[in-house]
Amino acid sequence: MKALVLEEKGKLSLRDFPLEQHLGPGDVRIAIRTVGVCGSDVHYYTHGKIGPFVVEEPMILGHEAAGVVLEIGSEVTHLKVGDRVCMEPGLPDPTSRASKLGIYNVDPSVRFWATPPVHGCLTPEVVHPAAFTYKLPAHVSFAEGAMVEPFAIGMQSALRARIQPGDIAVVTGAGPIGMMTALAALAGGCAKVYIADLAQPKLDIIGAYEGIETINIRDRPVADVIAETTDGWGADVVFECSGAAPAVLGLPALARPGGAVVLVGMPVDPVPVDVVGLQAKELRVETVFRYANIYDRAIALIAAGKVDLTPLISATLPFADSIAAFDRAVEARETDVKIQIEMPSR
Amino acid sequence: MKALVLEEKGKLSLRDFPLEQHLGPGDVRIAIRTVGVCGSDVHYYTHGKIGPFVVEEPMILGHEAAGVVLEIGSEVTHLKVGDRVCMEPGLPDPTSRASKLGIYNVDPSVRFWATPPVHGCLTPEVVHPAAFTYKLPAHVSFAEGAMVEPFAIGMQSALRARIQPGDIAVVTGAGPIGMMTALAALAGGCAKVYIADLAQPKLDIIGAYEGIETINIRDRPVADVIAETTDGWGADVVFECSGAAPAVLGLPALARPGGAVVLVGMPVDPVPVDVVGLQAKELRVETVFRYANIYDRAIALIAAGKVDLTPLISATLPFADSIAAFDRAVEARETDVKIQIEMPSR
Amino acid sequence: MKALVLEEKGKLSLRDFPLEQHLGPGDVRIAIRTVGVCGSDVHYYTHGKIGPFVVEEPMILGHEAAGVVLEIGSEVTHLKVGDRVCMEPGLPDPTSRASKLGIYNVDPSVRFWATPPVHGCLTPEVVHPAAFTYKLPAHVSFAEGAMVEPFAIGMQSALRARIQPGDIAVVTGAGPIGMMTALAALAGGCAKVYIADLAQPKLDIIGAYEGIETINIRDRPVADVIAETTDGWGADVVFECSGAAPAVLGLPALARPGGAVVLVGMPVDPVPVDVVGLQAKELRVETVFRYANIYDRAIALIAAGKVDLTPLISATLPFADSIAAFDRAVEARETDVKIQIEMPSR
Amino acid sequence: MKALVLEEKGKLSLRDFPLEQHLGPGDVRIAIRTVGVCGSDVHYYTHGKIGPFVVEEPMILGHEAAGVVLEIGSEVTHLKVGDRVCMEPGLPDPTSRASKLGIYNVDPSVRFWATPPVHGCLTPEVVHPAAFTYKLPAHVSFAEGAMVEPFAIGMQSALRARIQPGDIAVVTGAGPIGMMTALAALAGGCAKVYIADLAQPKLDIIGAYEGIETINIRDRPVADVIAETTDGWGADVVFECSGAAPAVLGLPALARPGGAVVLVGMPVDPVPVDVVGLQAKELRVETVFRYANIYDRAIALIAAGKVDLTPLISATLPFADSIAAFDRAVEARETDVKIQIEMPSR
Repeated sequence: MKALVLEEKGKLSLRDFPLEQHLGPGDVRIAIRTVGVCGSDVHYYTHGKIGPFVVEEPMILGHEAAGVVLEIGSEVTHLKVGDRVCMEPGLPDPTSRASKLGIYNVDPSVRFWATPPVHGCLTPEVVHPAAFTYKLPAHVSFAEGAMVEPFAIGMQSALRARIQPGDIAVVTGAGPIGMMTALAALAGGCAKVYIADLAQPKLDIIGAYEGIETINIRDRPVADVIAETTDGWGADVVFECSGAAPAVLGLPALARPGGAVVLVGMPVDPVPVDVVGLQAKELRVETVFRYANIYDRAIALIAAGKVDLTPLISATLPFADSIAAFDRAVEARETDVKIQIEMPSR
Repeated sequence: MKALVLEEKGKLSLRDFPLEQHLGPGDVRIAIRTVGVCGSDVHYYTHGKIGPFVVEEPMILGHEAAGVVLEIGSEVTHLKVGDRVCMEPGLPDPTSRASKLGIYNVDPSVRFWATPPVHGCLTPEVVHPAAFTYKLPAHVSFAEGAMVEPFAIGMQSALRARIQPGDIAVVTGAGPIGMMTALAALAGGCAKVYIADLAQPKLDIIGAYEGIETINIRDRPVADVIAETTDGWGADVVFECSGAAPAVLGLPALARPGGAVVLVGMPVDPVPVDVVGLQAKELRVETVFRYANIYDRAIALIAAGKVDLTPLISATLPFADSIAAFDRAVEARETDVKIQIEMPSR
Repeated sequence: MKALVLEEKGKLSLRDFPLEQHLGPGDVRIAIRTVGVCGSDVHYYTHGKIGPFVVEEPMILGHEAAGVVLEIGSEVTHLKVGDRVCMEPGLPDPTSRASKLGIYNVDPSVRFWATPPVHGCLTPEVVHPAAFTYKLPAHVSFAEGAMVEPFAIGMQSALRARIQPGDIAVVTGAGPIGMMTALAALAGGCAKVYIADLAQPKLDIIGAYEGIETINIRDRPVADVIAETTDGWGADVVFECSGAAPAVLGLPALARPGGAVVLVGMPVDPVPVDVVGLQAKELRVETVFRYANIYDRAIALIAAGKVDLTPLISATLPFADSIAAFDRAVEARETDVKIQIEMPSR
Repeated sequence: MKALVLEEKGKLSLRDFPLEQHLGPGDVRIAIRTVGVCGSDVHYYTHGKIGPFVVEEPMILGHEAAGVVLEIGSEVTHLKVGDRVCMEPGLPDPTSRASKLGIYNVDPSVRFWATPPVHGCLTPEVVHPAAFTYKLPAHVSFAEGAMVEPFAIGMQSALRARIQPGDIAVVTGAGPIGMMTALAALAGGCAKVYIADLAQPKLDIIGAYEGIETINIRDRPVADVIAETTDGWGADVVFECSGAAPAVLGLPALARPGGAVVLVGMPVDPVPVDVVGLQAKELRVETVFRYANIYDRAIALIAAGKVDLTPLISATLPFADSIAAFDRAVEARETDVKIQIEMPSR
């Protein structure tokens, strides 16, 4: 089977790749149709590693995927051949201590697509546990299905925030995850979401959504805008999605007394935090690591039309042009949100 | 000053009524502009009492109000003359044990407009504590402002439910409160809200909102619809808004394992509950009594356009026709949702 | 292997019973040492069924057990031969929707020891998944280990209550589960726990614990005692453990505004609930079904000496006298709390 | 009336001080009996300021107090003359936005005893709102009553943590607040509390309590002890009470996946935080600012004997020796926990 293989740092091949995939009783075999290119895929391509995860053997990339069920294992009941589906790329040990608690995302034994040494899904067929494969309603496209994975991070952030209907939210950082978080917060009950960045093109994309207000921090400090718009009270929830040290340091000024801060962005190194500032408002700080138990509800919001992710798909390239898709993703970081790769249908 | 006075059970007058209203340092004087007619107002009119609250002296009716600030007390800072506002009708003792906990709605010493012996607001001017008076944004009408009070009950229900983004909700009972709850749940993050009743005209009104699906229980049991639509899993949240015994008894069948039930409707007498049914799914049951800390967020959702309550206003009558408004409210219970009374502007 | 077999309603045998037990890679083989007799075991003996669960084939009884690891599967890492352990008797499908959420107790596919058609553990050896087998610290006895199962229900109740340090709790019903709940609530942060019943011998047993106050409802209504002791405010948490209709109906009077009620007792049929009474204080009602993620913390409290369950062990009989143990359990319901059966050590 | 007056940085007088104290209808007049010396009192003495709060006029010190009611205002119902009481030193605006939410501790308008320009209570009589004055049970001493204030901070920390019964907790820093937090966590349902510091005398004091284990970080890293004792899983809750940068940086290593961190200690400046470390375990971080709605439950735990604070009272000096008490507090920081000042009884 052909696959998009990261041979080593900086070197991609689209080539045959031997992949043994046994269909167990709880598994399904899936024809991949659409795969989104994620920043982490690109980072493995350009750097060969992310933190402790180093690409030491050729590895298939891709983890944001939708497809069609080709075959089901003997014990699978909630899916059938022909179902259109999307998949959670991270597989925990289902009987681990974390999994038993329902927080399988923080199970240390999770195996995650396209995270060394685990292969990804940029290949025509994969075998996957049915328990982590989710049916797409008829009117949700494969393109949308492949957006569920990045949207799930925004949704996890919204859930951790424990949004209350009518909350005012701020998102610092309008990268793909910041955008997903803003949309999840808005769909999740916020009355209004402010999103701040210094890249105007990104703000223009996300600002086109009704209910989202943009703040270009080159023009005006976020804290001033929030103070003005909330009569000095502050936002109910602040989502930090930039990973930038000044943004983290400035968090206490944005939140209302008793509000919540959600740390979504991942600063490379430890960053200074204004502990006393957080305490003076007795803020609750939540952190986010991927997602758990999110796919159902993410799909439900998309299917209901409460979230439309299609404006965030910047380009769609055929599988044959996968390497070009990655090269574009490397170059167009400032203007593209999401590039997707489409498999030939069969 | 003229006022709509319930002289005794069954007898309304629109007449001058002496009302001493001292403007304290934390108070504002408000010109009333719009007042909604609530089921409880009507019930005092037709029955002379609600539970232990008996009309023993002539009492001014009305508690769903919006108006304009005429004068402010010496210590008021967040409001000014000319501000368009709506008001919380229930005033707690702010230093009571319940108020200190933030649950001032369950402070036993609450004094509530148009609940004997406390007068309501169907009169041209009222004095009210600024702390329970909320500014309306410029583009929110007085009519919408007067809808905040009934909507606040729906909002309180949505908050108690602790909706998670993408939840599926069911509302049993499509009276005014059921409608308000459905809209609050939808704005509050639900992907979809099912609402069940046997009165088709009410279902038609609320079913016109996108995202809300109606179930006429003459046609089909709610439980069947929910089981089908959720693959047998059940709804994340069930709001019981009918107060009807069979609806209460049937609650466990509607919810998913680990889901929530919110009891909003008020059955006159104790009703049978299937405790073992609730336990088998380990359901959480929340109850609702009016609201606390809701007005800000209700107004924010209305102002943001996430909730449009105007389709629920069935008719608007001038203050001079207040008695006719009440008589219509008595008669048109099946087809009207909300009747409002408008004061002459000054 | 010998086993205590319920042949049919009313008929027990201690006899050889063929039981195929394959040790999978994630399993452990355990020599059973102590098994508690539960009300449900006794009920199957005397009635042949509990609700929909009917004994149609001979079934081994027993589900409250502790023992010693004899053999471990190839993938087991957290246990080793010789470890002293206790076991969760209910096994969910670990990839079910409920299990993924961390609420594996409400997974409809749970298989539970001594619940038809699943055999129990009153037999010298069992094979069990390591993930549901918990190590006992050296100073925790097998007798205590076999008490973890019933105590886990009390613990689940205490967790559902979301006790805050210094809460005042009331328990209605001083049966074994009421006692377990009272002890869990006390260890779980309550300042004081009141427990009410009409059986004085049971109250004497549980009243011997420091921090627990007993109320014999033949002498005085619970509501009066609680009102007096809390200056009319009410208890923070009320655990209903009797399953008796009058107790359920009287719940609103016991709780403080904004307090919690936990329904632990299981009334056979639907019972009348004072919905308006619950609403007037905006009470939260939690329900309990067995337990999930409790064993670790229950063992931790016992090991730390914060809970001593040994006074609740009324008698210990050898395995050879198992039938006598059950007959005593049938007869001495008023005075015994827990009877245990001890296997001969090997 | 005599008072202990901080004239300016470094200069205390015990002298007559004119203090106008009007008894309003909701107030009580209290004869002060015992006042604890707090680190903040000492800091004002030695530094003349804390952050933005600068002593610019002579100010009476003291805010940890118990006494006897001498006179009650006309509307006071829950207290009477002769009641033994303790007092919350911080008074919010009861109708502020924060107060209405039940989080009156973060109301920006709080006036707090002995925080410039507000006088403290080291004087024979004070007038105080009854709503913030709490009755002490007969067997709780004035000395214990004056310990409620510092203990309340530990309690607030324990509440923010949302301890679940049987949790394992770690406290970093064994100063007075660390000790209070450890005791609150233990009483609040933790099975075991580990407390770490490098001052052995402090560890010896707190280690004398059953259920508390001490770790001298000169001997061994906290992370190693916790990893060992929890089989590598981590603590459920970590309370950071040192305010020391290395302790804050090391927090992720101490907690279990999905656990909680409570920031109690107040680092003077922003400190580096390992955001990715927090995220990898999806930790929840809570912060603490004084306390709200804590006194009742703190007193309940003390009265029930679940917390004994008397071993933490290092010395008691008469009011006449107040200056000596403060000088001892400055000098004996390493060995004393709490020094109290006793008023002559009348």
